[in-house]
Amino acid sequence: MNVTVLGASSTKFGELWQISPRDLVGRTVADTLLEADIPRRKIQAVIVGNMLSGILGGQEHLGAFFAEELNLKVPAVKVESACASGGMAVHTAVMAIISGLYETVLVVGVEKMTDYKPEELAQALMGAGSDVEREAGATFPALYAMMARVHMDKYQTTETDMAAVAVKNHLHASLNSQAHFPFRITVEQVLASPKVASPLKLLDCSPVTDGAASILLTKSAKIKNKRQVSIIASASSTDSLGLSERQSLDSIKATSIAAKKAFELSAVSPTEVDIAEVHDCFTIAEIMAMEDIGFYKKGEAAPAIREGKTGLNGRPVVNISGGLKASGHPVGATGVKQIVEIYHQLKGDSGKRQVSKARVGLSHNVGGSGASAVIHILKSFK
Amino acid sequence: MNVTVLGASSTKFGELWQISPRDLVGRTVADTLLEADIPRRKIQAVIVGNMLSGILGGQEHLGAFFAEELNLKVPAVKVESACASGGMAVHTAVMAIISGLYETVLVVGVEKMTDYKPEELAQALMGAGSDVEREAGATFPALYAMMARVHMDKYQTTETDMAAVAVKNHLHASLNSQAHFPFRITVEQVLASPKVASPLKLLDCSPVTDGAASILLTKSAKIKNKRQVSIIASASSTDSLGLSERQSLDSIKATSIAAKKAFELSAVSPTEVDIAEVHDCFTIAEIMAMEDIGFYKKGEAAPAIREGKTGLNGRPVVNISGGLKASGHPVGATGVKQIVEIYHQLKGDSGKRQVSKARVGLSHNVGGSGASAVIHILKSFK
Repeated sequence: MNVTVLGASSTKFGELWQISPRDLVGRTVADTLLEADIPRRKIQAVIVGNMLSGILGGQEHLGAFFAEELNLKVPAVKVESACASGGMAVHTAVMAIISGLYETVLVVGVEKMTDYKPEELAQALMGAGSDVEREAGATFPALYAMMARVHMDKYQTTETDMAAVAVKNHLHASLNSQAHFPFRITVEQVLASPKVASPLKLLDCSPVTDGAASILLTKSAKIKNKRQVSIIASASSTDSLGLSERQSLDSIKATSIAAKKAFELSAVSPTEVDIAEVHDCFTIAEIMAMEDIGFYKKGEAAPAIREGKTGLNGRPVVNISGGLKASGHPVGATGVKQIVEIYHQLKGDSGKRQVSKARVGLSHNVGGSGASAVIHILKSFK
Repeated sequence: MNVTVLGASSTKFGELWQISPRDLVGRTVADTLLEADIPRRKIQAVIVGNMLSGILGGQEHLGAFFAEELNLKVPAVKVESACASGGMAVHTAVMAIISGLYETVLVVGVEKMTDYKPEELAQALMGAGSDVEREAGATFPALYAMMARVHMDKYQTTETDMAAVAVKNHLHASLNSQAHFPFRITVEQVLASPKVASPLKLLDCSPVTDGAASILLTKSAKIKNKRQVSIIASASSTDSLGLSERQSLDSIKATSIAAKKAFELSAVSPTEVDIAEVHDCFTIAEIMAMEDIGFYKKGEAAPAIREGKTGLNGRPVVNISGGLKASGHPVGATGVKQIVEIYHQLKGDSGKRQVSKARVGLSHNVGGSGASAVIHILKSFK
């Protein structure tokens, strides 16, 4: 598989009350097209990743909506897979291109979340979960807290280990002016933050964020005078919506299946990955992801993270953007923005947070509490 | 393009208060797999077409939801394009297969509409329209009524012409025990029915319907001992969400662009089409569709329909299932069910409503008031 990335960008992430979804999308697409430096008429299809626009804002039909806004009267569709909507939008675009039906496809991920009341939002987000969990009043912090408890029990993972994830990702975000929280925090601050669902505290949780990201993809192409970045694997998997039907709660099976497939497709091994953007909706989720993707054996990720092996001077460097935790988590945009980050890292234009000699990158996007997972692997060619 | 249909079915359409979406989907998929006669483990991905489950029922993440319900832990995603969600789900499945990433893909279209209050439903459906139209309080009958007025003015189309569409489609539905309204009506009944949005009356409008449909697709395959049916073209297009931005109101431009592309892809001409399932959400929509697809010149469809040229003994036979008007319109299921109907017609197993010598069929699915259109062309091989 070889799908060339022509351009990619994301907006500032944060509480952007004054900016509408159409303006967020307009801005990121303008930036992406500027970088791609191809005329707008070359775009043959638009794939939109979004979860909440219908349920919260009453606007569906976002494919046609944004195609019109962008003055592109081309085939367009919205794909939805909860918090993995962005990743699934990229996966769909990859299929569209490899199928030969479309040569150049624009992927847009967008979410506007902060305009709504917290209780409305919490309810809407549980649209990603099982109806049993919704009826029981479970929320995502509660579900991930249960997974954290199992992981702690089985592998002696501690609250300090989880805090280390948040501290690392905030440190990374402090180098990213587009991050929702571009500042450092300490382990002590994480441990002292209010409990949300024990053992998860406020600073173990990713925030509610507005933002948009976009990527322009085309079939394998030679680009002049630029370091070339391609998607060399795109894979996805599913598992039960609810935790009660899972084989185990200390890992996300959909992640491990999708990762295995992606490594096979690309003939890349986990040890070759220089950077990874993983789905750290909660700190425990990053620990599990590191193991489920295959970077570490079960139980070995937490010590590695604590020792800085996934920080700026480690390998792979994980969530150099700040991750969902500190860069923010506008759900439909997240999976797209992960690939935007990797693209720029592999191109070598990530400024202050550039990872040296980054050649292979991996993105990992999860829907719900692990019912969907999408993995992409990207590689740069000189 | 050659994607083989292995099996296809739909549930009874109607007001199915006692049946949940999961049961509707379970039933149609069981029927489709029975016909396809392949083991469930051969299914490599699931694409779900649905519009309203999130906005009305609070349940998103339908890809993973139905994958779990069907005991298929495979990649799954929901695609949404308003009333064209079903057609876009099939289009996505076709891309998935042609890309080579997935060999055998299950498409599910489902909608549960009758459990909600009419005003909730009307508001949710306008999620397919432009925000200007929503703010103005326009509904889809009002929007199509405006198009009808323009068509009447320009081509002397009459209310009796529109009534003839409803009469034909009800006649067809009377041969379809799965139709929402399997009975005949008369022109007089249509003309005397209550006005919804003048000139459209109650019997010019498709109903609010529950139902599900499914199709199992695979890469070009030779099937033993059966007449083989393949999708030989899949094309889509978009236009503005709102009517105010359209070039004209007497046609749906997205339809004509998608149809042109589909005829090119398949090297089939409109005169070769034996049967067509077109998107008759309102009677005027069928008249416009006949012209926009290219079966008739502008202004010539209404007389042809009136004269019976698209009825059971005509060519192409249009909406032999009863169409959206009489078979029903569960929005996410509609685009899938259109192809289910064509598949069975081309296989020759449509019983009382079998069209003789049907070899080439076309389906036409529209989202909103014409912001999205999807066309599929199917052909049977002996």
